Amino acid sequence: MNWKMIWRIIAYTLLIEAALMVPALLISIGYHEMTVVYAYLATLAVIGVVAGLLLLVTKNARKGFYARDGLVTAGFTWLAMSMLGCLPFWFSREIPSYVDCLFEMVSGFTTTGSSILTDVEAMSKGLIWWRSFSHWVGGMGVLVFLMAIVPLGGKNSGFTLHILRAESPGPSVGKMTPRMKQTASILYKIYFGLTVINIVLLMVGGMDWFESCCHAFGTAGTGGFGIKADSFASYSPYLQNVTTIFMLLFSVNFSIYYLLLLRKFTDVIRDEELRAFVLIVLGSIIALVFCVRPLYGTLEETIRHSAFTVSTIISTTGYATTDFNLWPAFAKAILLILMCIGACAGSTGGGIKVIRVVLLGKIFRRNLHQSQHPDEVSAIRVNDKRIDEQVVRNTTAYLIIYVAIAVISFLLVSLDGFDVETNLSAVFATFNNIGPGLGAVGPVSNFAAYSDFAKLVMTFDMLAGRLEIYPIIVILSRRTWARTR
Amino acid sequence: MNWKMIWRIIAYTLLIEAALMVPALLISIGYHEMTVVYAYLATLAVIGVVAGLLLLVTKNARKGFYARDGLVTAGFTWLAMSMLGCLPFWFSREIPSYVDCLFEMVSGFTTTGSSILTDVEAMSKGLIWWRSFSHWVGGMGVLVFLMAIVPLGGKNSGFTLHILRAESPGPSVGKMTPRMKQTASILYKIYFGLTVINIVLLMVGGMDWFESCCHAFGTAGTGGFGIKADSFASYSPYLQNVTTIFMLLFSVNFSIYYLLLLRKFTDVIRDEELRAFVLIVLGSIIALVFCVRPLYGTLEETIRHSAFTVSTIISTTGYATTDFNLWPAFAKAILLILMCIGACAGSTGGGIKVIRVVLLGKIFRRNLHQSQHPDEVSAIRVNDKRIDEQVVRNTTAYLIIYVAIAVISFLLVSLDGFDVETNLSAVFATFNNIGPGLGAVGPVSNFAAYSDFAKLVMTFDMLAGRLEIYPIIVILSRRTWARTR
Repeated sequence: MNWKMIWRIIAYTLLIEAALMVPALLISIGYHEMTVVYAYLATLAVIGVVAGLLLLVTKNARKGFYARDGLVTAGFTWLAMSMLGCLPFWFSREIPSYVDCLFEMVSGFTTTGSSILTDVEAMSKGLIWWRSFSHWVGGMGVLVFLMAIVPLGGKNSGFTLHILRAESPGPSVGKMTPRMKQTASILYKIYFGLTVINIVLLMVGGMDWFESCCHAFGTAGTGGFGIKADSFASYSPYLQNVTTIFMLLFSVNFSIYYLLLLRKFTDVIRDEELRAFVLIVLGSIIALVFCVRPLYGTLEETIRHSAFTVSTIISTTGYATTDFNLWPAFAKAILLILMCIGACAGSTGGGIKVIRVVLLGKIFRRNLHQSQHPDEVSAIRVNDKRIDEQVVRNTTAYLIIYVAIAVISFLLVSLDGFDVETNLSAVFATFNNIGPGLGAVGPVSNFAAYSDFAKLVMTFDMLAGRLEIYPIIVILSRRTWARTR
Repeated sequence: MNWKMIWRIIAYTLLIEAALMVPALLISIGYHEMTVVYAYLATLAVIGVVAGLLLLVTKNARKGFYARDGLVTAGFTWLAMSMLGCLPFWFSREIPSYVDCLFEMVSGFTTTGSSILTDVEAMSKGLIWWRSFSHWVGGMGVLVFLMAIVPLGGKNSGFTLHILRAESPGPSVGKMTPRMKQTASILYKIYFGLTVINIVLLMVGGMDWFESCCHAFGTAGTGGFGIKADSFASYSPYLQNVTTIFMLLFSVNFSIYYLLLLRKFTDVIRDEELRAFVLIVLGSIIALVFCVRPLYGTLEETIRHSAFTVSTIISTTGYATTDFNLWPAFAKAILLILMCIGACAGSTGGGIKVIRVVLLGKIFRRNLHQSQHPDEVSAIRVNDKRIDEQVVRNTTAYLIIYVAIAVISFLLVSLDGFDVETNLSAVFATFNNIGPGLGAVGPVSNFAAYSDFAKLVMTFDMLAGRLEIYPIIVILSRRTWARTR
């Protein structure tokens, strides 16, 4: 393990975090929220000291870097950013308990959107902004951002690759360009561009600039922190539909947009994950429309709410136009399943990822076939590309650990004594980075009622979900620490 | 596909079923239940005709037999036995709807124990007997029985092996003796012996011979059809504890008993599955005792109910001494997880099987290790024996299809509009062959409220669960049928 380098990278990311906090500071100054201003200044001071010390200690760090280091870096970076990033909430006393602050911040960076706030509208603008902006930062991953601006690895792109792999969602990060640095910057350009368009379209619909930005951040990161108590319910159909479309756009693999820029349209149409995603979305919307038609006056309304809910759940955003907790059991069952599937790999969305579901299906068919024809050996192909057996192994390992973590979290969260529906959906909503669940954690309620212990369990789930488990596993594994001695 | 042979074997098993029905016929004669007597005679006539025709058509059947044929045989045999075996319920009009009859019979043969009866005590003795006896028949598998008595394969034991593999639970059936026929008969001797001891111990406790037999059948098959409305609640602590112990005994891999007979005690103590099983059982009991202590007067009572419930759930039997549906959320969560784990491979119990959980854990650790050291190749070992990669592939495929079937069934069953807890536990209870679930299908209620469609879905789940999915998959797969043309 190259610990010095790991700490150095953490220091860099903390400095970036400080820089990203400045807009929020300016806004709180603009709105004359002095306690918040002081809270931000204090936080910036703390971050400055911590980062400074880390940089001093790690002056002469080697550049050598392995997969394992990449995973550990991602894990610790996110932990450090959350633990320091939540200080403004705590210093300003607007969220009294530090556990709650941490939960809210992790929920922000992991683009989960689960909140412990009982009255979001009472929060000061400066904090609301940071809370929503954390979605945008976490959506693409701050390490990717770091790769995009700092030439840490120099020519050695394997170095960058390891970190990128560890942080970006999906079984394997698409090597769009030979040099990873370039890939990272392209990703961010697409991300930035789509966000700006989203903001503009919202403002065209009559939403003021502040709300437009906050909502666009939440949409881009597929996070879903609302700034109104009723989330999106009180906004115009136009604004709801724009958000529906952008939530779906941000849950598509970004390499698709790169392909579009390169005019490789046939590759886009042939993409198996994209096809599966579109199929799932349309199928679910149709099923829901039939299922909830009686609950709404007009067909337009039914379709609008169904489409919005499907895209908010499968994109793992978590905005709501209607209380789907009151929908019939079949509709809820569909939502629970969409919660687990989640968005496409290489997007800002969470969940198991569509490509993994596709892969698992292919792995199953392959294995069943081999159980009857043990002599034949067949490779698994996606988009006519041969899938490395390593990816196959990782995918099955992922399913196993995914089920295990979900089961154990469900068990621990059940200690608080809520009903099965609430606990199960609470775990899924946090682990898959969605936000609201069903029952007592439904779209119109929040996670405040859970105990600190349950909140910490779900904080872990949010991080594990966003970083796709492996970094967390590696950090918790004994060997990681044995190596250092 | 060797269809002629398949149909021939089905014919044989139907004749065995007819023979197994005779005791029930005699009992209904003994209790002067004439309508039931006629129902049995009519059923025997139908079976005779069907079996006779099949034997006529398949006179000149080849002996050649492959894994695929074994799977198909198991699937169709169980279907045929259930569809004809449920006729007495229907002819006697004691269960008016044929779907209900089929559900009840499949629930019996698959040793599930889920019932659609609203008042079991109103049922006539002759039918009660057959209902409970079906657990005993299904527990060990009627095909194993066939192997034990009929030298179908002659010297060619591969033939027998394929069928045995297809029908017996667990990833791989322990080749206890070189000749499968011998293995099968040993299995049945152990099964028969334990059942007799169980009956005797129940009668010693003051239970009359009829109830003792019915309960012992339900325990041996880990089925759990009760004959009293309150299942085991009204029986003495002695009878409850005896049942607790025997439910656990019947959920242990039978090869363990064979090892005991051979005095290979060290092998028994070293057996990884047995160790894991004991650990899970003790751990769960202790956890539950702490959890439900406040609900019961004495500690003895708490331990008795906790132990009984753990063994009834993990053995997938389904008897109940207390309404665990009223237990706190944490206890329910434990039960839901035990439902999925289930008993040991090579026992009469259902579920994913302890050995598979152990295997999945090892597979995960192996795959994670390889994801960091792609060059190293390591085999998975259980009981110091190298596990064939084929078993590894099958196990992962099993997990994938297990999750898929559970999810789809949950979705379809949700159409009936019950709450998530009820639907989820109903699917688990049937798919894992347990019996009662939670919520509206808890231990003191039944499955009658579900629609015919939902009942058929769960009937499929029970068969898929008992036959460990593969036979069902193969039967449903296109290739199976393409081959025949």
